[in-house]
Amino acid sequence: MKLGEFSLIEILTKKLKTLKKEVVLSVGDDTAVIKKNSTFLLLTVDALVENSHFRREWKKKIRELYYLLGRKLLSISLSDIAAMGGEAKYALVTLGVSESSKLEDLEALYKGLSDASVEYNVDVVGGDTVRSKGEFFDLFLLGESRKFMRRSEAKPGELVAVTGTFGDSKAGLELIEKGKEIKRNFLINRFLNPTPRLKEGKEAVRMGVKCGTDVSDGLIFNLYTIAESSKVSIFIDSGKIPMSKELLSFCKERKRNPLEYALFGGEDYELIITFPNDIEKEITALGFKVIGEAGKGSGVFLDGKLIPKKGFDHFRRE
Amino acid sequence: MKLGEFSLIEILTKKLKTLKKEVVLSVGDDTAVIKKNSTFLLLTVDALVENSHFRREWKKKIRELYYLLGRKLLSISLSDIAAMGGEAKYALVTLGVSESSKLEDLEALYKGLSDASVEYNVDVVGGDTVRSKGEFFDLFLLGESRKFMRRSEAKPGELVAVTGTFGDSKAGLELIEKGKEIKRNFLINRFLNPTPRLKEGKEAVRMGVKCGTDVSDGLIFNLYTIAESSKVSIFIDSGKIPMSKELLSFCKERKRNPLEYALFGGEDYELIITFPNDIEKEITALGFKVIGEAGKGSGVFLDGKLIPKKGFDHFRRE
Repeated sequence: MKLGEFSLIEILTKKLKTLKKEVVLSVGDDTAVIKKNSTFLLLTVDALVENSHFRREWKKKIRELYYLLGRKLLSISLSDIAAMGGEAKYALVTLGVSESSKLEDLEALYKGLSDASVEYNVDVVGGDTVRSKGEFFDLFLLGESRKFMRRSEAKPGELVAVTGTFGDSKAGLELIEKGKEIKRNFLINRFLNPTPRLKEGKEAVRMGVKCGTDVSDGLIFNLYTIAESSKVSIFIDSGKIPMSKELLSFCKERKRNPLEYALFGGEDYELIITFPNDIEKEITALGFKVIGEAGKGSGVFLDGKLIPKKGFDHFRRE
Repeated sequence: MKLGEFSLIEILTKKLKTLKKEVVLSVGDDTAVIKKNSTFLLLTVDALVENSHFRREWKKKIRELYYLLGRKLLSISLSDIAAMGGEAKYALVTLGVSESSKLEDLEALYKGLSDASVEYNVDVVGGDTVRSKGEFFDLFLLGESRKFMRRSEAKPGELVAVTGTFGDSKAGLELIEKGKEIKRNFLINRFLNPTPRLKEGKEAVRMGVKCGTDVSDGLIFNLYTIAESSKVSIFIDSGKIPMSKELLSFCKERKRNPLEYALFGGEDYELIITFPNDIEKEITALGFKVIGEAGKGSGVFLDGKLIPKKGFDHFRRE
C-alpha cells in the first residue's frame, strides 16, 4: 500500500463505532478512556517495527541497540499515558521474531523492557512471541487516572506550553543512519531512549490543565492535532521553541536549520498543554515553557505565518 | 531463531516479575488477572501473523479470507476470556501492513473485526497501523469477571470435560493448504471462523467451576498445561473425545486417523474444565462432555497409556 492509502486505513479505524456508554474516548486521542467507578482506565498500544522504527544493522554501530529498543518500547506508550496525565500500571507485549533473529538480541530487549518497567513501576503481566517475516515489538499499556487531559479542550486565549527540547530525536536518528562509527551521545539517547513526561503530565492535570497531547509526529503536526480537535488556532513564537545546545551545534556543523528539526522532527515524546494564563506561574514551575497561545479560528501559525501540517514519517518514502 | 530458542523466549517472558499486589495472575494462564475493587480485570493479547497463521495466497482460494481473519483476530482473544469465564469488553488493534498489502484486504479485515465486535459486544477503542515487512494483526483484549477459572485448580478425583469437537481446525487448514479450488465448508469454517465459548465459560464459573483453559495448542498439549500447573495427572478415554462427522469422513477418505487430529490438531478454541462429580449433571446440561478425570501424580494418559506432550505449531518446521 502507498502512504495515501495508509491514512485511509487510519480513517477506517476512526470509523469504528463504540457501543458502551462508559467509553469516554476511543480512537482519536493519545489513549482510549473508559470510565470505571470513580476513576478512568487509559488504554494505549504502540509498536516498534523493523525498518520502520529501527534497523537491525544499527547493532553494528550501537551494541546496546536491543536493550534500548526494549526501553523505548515501553517509553513510547508511557508517553501516551503522560499526555493524558495518568499513571501507568500494566503492560502486555507481543514479540514478532524472524528466523534470522538472534536470541541475545531478544534477551537484551527483554532486559531493557524489564529495567524500564521497574523504573516506571509498570507490571508486564503478559507476553507472547510469534514468528514473523520481519521483527516487530508491540506493547499494550493500561493506565489509570482520576482526571485526564484531552486534545480537544484548548480554548482561545489559553497559553500553549511544552516540556523539554525539540528536534533532538531526528538529529539522533540521522547520526545513527549516516554515521559509520558511533558514540552514544545526547542526541542518539534522545532518539533511542526518550524520557516519558509522566510527572509533568500528572502535575499539570492536578493543576487543572484540561488539554494536552504528546509530540510523536513533530511539534507542528501535534499542535495541529490540538488545533483541529479543539477548533482553535495556535500561534507560536519561533524564538521560544526550546532547542538543545547539542542540536544547535549539530546543525551548525552541517549548516542546517535547527528550527526545521524542532518543528518537524518527530519522536520527541515531549508534552504540549494549553491552559488559562492565571496559572502560568504554577505551570512554568513544573518545567513547562510557554511557546505561544491559542486563538479563535483555525491553523497553526509561526511568527504570524500559517505553517502547513507536515509530520514525521520515520523512514519517509513517497 | 530456531524453535528451541523460541521457547527460551517464552521462558524469559515468564520470568518477568510483577510488583503490584493486585496482580493476581500474570504470564502463565489464559489471561492476566488484576484485582480491581470487587471485580477482576482480564488482559490478553493475540496475533495473526502472515506465514505463521495465514498465507496471503489463500485469498485466491477463499475470497472472503481477510474478512474471516478480522473475525478470527477477535475470536482467538475472546477464547482466552472464555477460558477464564469472563466477559469481554474493550479491544485495541495494531495492523502491520506491508508495501504490497491491498487496501481492500485491510478494509475486509476491519469489516470482519467490526462485525465480530458488534456480535460479541466488544468495543474496539484503539487502533494503529504500522508499516511492516510482512502482514501482522495484533489484538489486545480487556475483559472482566467477578470470579474466574485458573489452569492450576484441578484436583484429583475431579471430572474433565470439554466443549465442542476436536481436530476440525487442523483438517480445515489442510484443506486450504492442499486444495486447489475450495468451497467453504464446516472444517474450513472451524479453522478460519472459530466460535469462542464465552457462554459456556461464564456459566461454568457461575456453577462454581474453578479450573479451565482453552485449546489453542492441541487437546493433549492443553491438558498438559492443566496437569502441570495443577500438579495432577489426567486420564482420558479415547472413545469419549468428541469428533465431528465432517472430520470422520475427511479422515476416512484420506485413510487418516481422526484421533491424531483430535488429540494434536490445535486451534480448536474449545474449553477444557475440571469439576467435582456432584455437579456433573449441571455441567453436561451446559453442553460440556466428560472425557476423563484427574488423578494424583503427573502426566496425561489416553486409555491408561502415557501420551507425550506434543503441540500444534502452525506451519511446523524443525
